[in-house]
Amino acid sequence: MDRQTIYDHSTVVLTIEGSEERREVLAVEKPYTVLLNDRKIGAAMVLETGLEEFGAGFLFGQGYVDKPGQVREVLVCPEGRILVHADVEEDIEPKEVIITSGCGGTGKISREMLEGAFDPLQEYTFSLAEAGEFIRQALQASDLGTKTHCVHGCGFWADGRLQAFYEDVGRHNAVDKVMGAILLGKAEPSGAIYTTGRLTSDMVLKCARMRIPVVLSRTAPSSLGVAIAARAGLTLAGYGRQDRLNVFTHPERVLVS
Amino acid sequence: MDRQTIYDHSTVVLTIEGSEERREVLAVEKPYTVLLNDRKIGAAMVLETGLEEFGAGFLFGQGYVDKPGQVREVLVCPEGRILVHADVEEDIEPKEVIITSGCGGTGKISREMLEGAFDPLQEYTFSLAEAGEFIRQALQASDLGTKTHCVHGCGFWADGRLQAFYEDVGRHNAVDKVMGAILLGKAEPSGAIYTTGRLTSDMVLKCARMRIPVVLSRTAPSSLGVAIAARAGLTLAGYGRQDRLNVFTHPERVLVS
Repeated sequence: MDRQTIYDHSTVVLTIEGSEERREVLAVEKPYTVLLNDRKIGAAMVLETGLEEFGAGFLFGQGYVDKPGQVREVLVCPEGRILVHADVEEDIEPKEVIITSGCGGTGKISREMLEGAFDPLQEYTFSLAEAGEFIRQALQASDLGTKTHCVHGCGFWADGRLQAFYEDVGRHNAVDKVMGAILLGKAEPSGAIYTTGRLTSDMVLKCARMRIPVVLSRTAPSSLGVAIAARAGLTLAGYGRQDRLNVFTHPERVLVS
Repeated sequence: MDRQTIYDHSTVVLTIEGSEERREVLAVEKPYTVLLNDRKIGAAMVLETGLEEFGAGFLFGQGYVDKPGQVREVLVCPEGRILVHADVEEDIEPKEVIITSGCGGTGKISREMLEGAFDPLQEYTFSLAEAGEFIRQALQASDLGTKTHCVHGCGFWADGRLQAFYEDVGRHNAVDKVMGAILLGKAEPSGAIYTTGRLTSDMVLKCARMRIPVVLSRTAPSSLGVAIAARAGLTLAGYGRQDRLNVFTHPERVLVS
């Protein structure tokens, strides 16, 4: 099935000098329903890329799936349904749900997730030069970002190379696609994640739950994003550029030389 | 009660030339639970400004409240609860919920909302010069945006002046605060709304449901955002600056001269 991610729309640019016709490229969002073991969990508006990863990552974001190995199969059906089959306890569900502040395609977390303890992280260090190369490659891979100004990108870096990169109309969905890639065994969680979006609590919590040691953003974190990173032992850096990082927590993982 | 919206955090800026300590200003997000007539509806992470408006607007975004006049009273309680008393049918609830693509503090819409008909709009035109003044004043009012890079702003313009302006860690929450201001009778819906965030389906749908005729954004709309605006008869403009608008639908409402 060919999936449409963009289309042209004719617009009128108005200035005091007059008006001018233009064509703008729009990002196409479509509703998808995610089912876990044939049970409907929720529906979300998504950009139609990385849908298998999105299905798995959406369930992770909602707290139904926790770690790689649980997801057995993902089927994307033409009528907007993503069927995920996973080895999970059927009654697991976030108890008290908080709709989160961020760009929240799937911005729902439970108080349990927010206040619970985190498993220890694996050892991981990377260099500032590697961070710069990661950001450069991620931005280069961001095809729709510059075209539409309406998508966020999220990349994952491990073993010295870009392992995954996804875009979506929601910054959460893009992160969920990366989480899905890890859940589906396409990458190990011992690495660094980079998002073009802000690092609010929900975003950082997903990284902490997946035990991703380094979390980078093109822009800023929120107070609770930083607090969760500090508590979980993550290195959180904002305002990431090819030649600089502004590190809010645990700078010891980034080697400058 | 004094509410904290920002705090300083010490960071380390790493470049190849070396490292430097810095203090960054973080936006503070706090969980708030919204209750409608003593029934718990949901919880969201918010910036602690305009909480009465947020309470009312959150219920609008979730489909429990529809129009001005329904909300009788809003009480903000210290322990993170917002009590809204409104004249609504108790069993009204979105039937099939879609978690939306956008920055979605409260990005939940139902298929019913998405596919339903819209009431006719009131007459409203405004000039390009007025649009420029609106955007100028909104950006000027955006105190935390430049400080934290972690909040979105949303303003409302009618009768030739800025009627409301709110910020929040979620672009949806900021829009919900404006919707709440309208619901609480602080402004009439016949005017223009401006958001620093993208106009995805959920954002435009809220404006269409509130019958706000002109919807402006600093950045881009999505495909479905444009489709909803076209269907509801709204003027939707992206890439709004003080001297220009890029109008995607119904440009006839914006007078250039």
